[in-house]
Amino acid sequence: MNLDFLSHTESTFAAIQEEQVARISDFDGDLKVTRDKWERSAGGGGDTRVFSEGRIIEKGGLNFSAVRGEVGVGLQQQLQTKATRFAATGVSSVLHPHNPHVPIIHMNVRYFALDDGTWWFGGGIDLTPHYIVPSEAQAFHGDLKSICDVHAVADYVNFKSWADRYFYSPHREESRGVGGIFFDHMGREGGVDPQEALAFCVALASAYSDIYKRRAAPFLSIPATEAEKAWQGLRRGRYVEFNLVHDRGTRFGLVSGGRTESILMSLPASANWTYNHQPEPGSREAQTLNWLSKGKEGVDWLSA
Amino acid sequence: MNLDFLSHTESTFAAIQEEQVARISDFDGDLKVTRDKWERSAGGGGDTRVFSEGRIIEKGGLNFSAVRGEVGVGLQQQLQTKATRFAATGVSSVLHPHNPHVPIIHMNVRYFALDDGTWWFGGGIDLTPHYIVPSEAQAFHGDLKSICDVHAVADYVNFKSWADRYFYSPHREESRGVGGIFFDHMGREGGVDPQEALAFCVALASAYSDIYKRRAAPFLSIPATEAEKAWQGLRRGRYVEFNLVHDRGTRFGLVSGGRTESILMSLPASANWTYNHQPEPGSREAQTLNWLSKGKEGVDWLSA
Repeated sequence: MNLDFLSHTESTFAAIQEEQVARISDFDGDLKVTRDKWERSAGGGGDTRVFSEGRIIEKGGLNFSAVRGEVGVGLQQQLQTKATRFAATGVSSVLHPHNPHVPIIHMNVRYFALDDGTWWFGGGIDLTPHYIVPSEAQAFHGDLKSICDVHAVADYVNFKSWADRYFYSPHREESRGVGGIFFDHMGREGGVDPQEALAFCVALASAYSDIYKRRAAPFLSIPATEAEKAWQGLRRGRYVEFNLVHDRGTRFGLVSGGRTESILMSLPASANWTYNHQPEPGSREAQTLNWLSKGKEGVDWLSA
Repeated sequence: MNLDFLSHTESTFAAIQEEQVARISDFDGDLKVTRDKWERSAGGGGDTRVFSEGRIIEKGGLNFSAVRGEVGVGLQQQLQTKATRFAATGVSSVLHPHNPHVPIIHMNVRYFALDDGTWWFGGGIDLTPHYIVPSEAQAFHGDLKSICDVHAVADYVNFKSWADRYFYSPHREESRGVGGIFFDHMGREGGVDPQEALAFCVALASAYSDIYKRRAAPFLSIPATEAEKAWQGLRRGRYVEFNLVHDRGTRFGLVSGGRTESILMSLPASANWTYNHQPEPGSREAQTLNWLSKGKEGVDWLSA
């Protein structure tokens, strides 16, 4: 394990957290940001910034963590490794807006290193509109492709497909949202310069707040009806279902003794369930559901 | 597989559904009951009764299902069997009240048979108060013990402990509620008369609505403050977390291609999450949390 590079990555990620929290606070002047620094008994800890009571953002957060520890038998099997010590550091965020016309966004970058010398990066950004507007999904994917295109380690087409497959709820036969990019194990097989992989993660995480501002801005002043708020509640219910039933990061964290409150920061302030809700045929809700029901390979938004 | 007994059990369970729906409708005169009969492409189907807009009950349901099909490789491994055909029938219900002073209740009885001749019953009833009142938990357990005590196949102490261990969220280190009884594989090892096992399931499921009425009645006219409704939202969030992260029945259903809407009938109309919520020390909310935090073996309510 290259401790200098680990330390450099940790401090780089910590700086990204500061910068992104500042930019999001700038975007939503009313946002209440609460800091919760925590330590992990087995080694390391984190710095959780909790967002609430914003003008735009109802609930969310932006976590930094840097933990070290022993690779237990379960993790050895999952990672197919015989390494005994690990280090992991990352930044992750979810933003749930008040206004149903404004989308939910999620970002994560992370670095994982083992004492057998292997290491890898992973992460992604994905967008979950309560109401899908194809031109917005296209612009969002355009932003992500632009970042990938200037980093040789990144392959937009592959990472976009990865996000589609990852953010899919088989039990609903629905995509969570319009996808984005997702990648994992970058560098694990060798042939990747760690500085280049880090540079891509930095570029992605540093673009997070700007990407969100662009997608939120057109909708901020559109008033929401009660019916639109009700639809948002149901879509948030689906978000909860995806995170708790399928999301591998969430499930791994919860069953491996991760810090529950930091992991479940991703959940909305409220969510609703109605038995077998079916939107009016032809409604904007039905159109959104139709876009979400294209299957596990999602939609090619750049050509849609 | 004894098809006569299977058929008898199915019709017995279907009759219990009718009776219990009638009794619950009698208890909550405003309750809207919607019927959703469904078929399963692989064989069999179900009859879902959805509850909404009641005076007492906000959301819930009472399902009957009777399905048959092939035992896939995954199920063979899970059940440790080489049988190739199965039949399953059951009744299950969850009731979420409007009033936070009234508890949530859950009941399930089920019969499973394989073409190698093995069969078993399972089920239980458990109570999830938003506010725990020890004397109420004691009376609830007293009712369950009385039913177990007159059925030789049932062992209250064992089934009570089983419920405590089952309805526990390790990621919160919290019990879901005050437990109840839970049992599974009754008859699988032989030595159990199927008629006696069925009689116990019938007694349990037939007592469901009366058990709930007794636990709801003292609280129906207590007004709820905004703070109490907020606490209910957070406890409902925990209920959602338990069901989606840990409940083996829910998870098995969702990943094995079960009928999603019938399975997720168990979720409340709404649920809330607040980062790291801590109730006021000494408050009724803190007292409830204290009762829920006694560990995986729960509380001996009959002696509490």
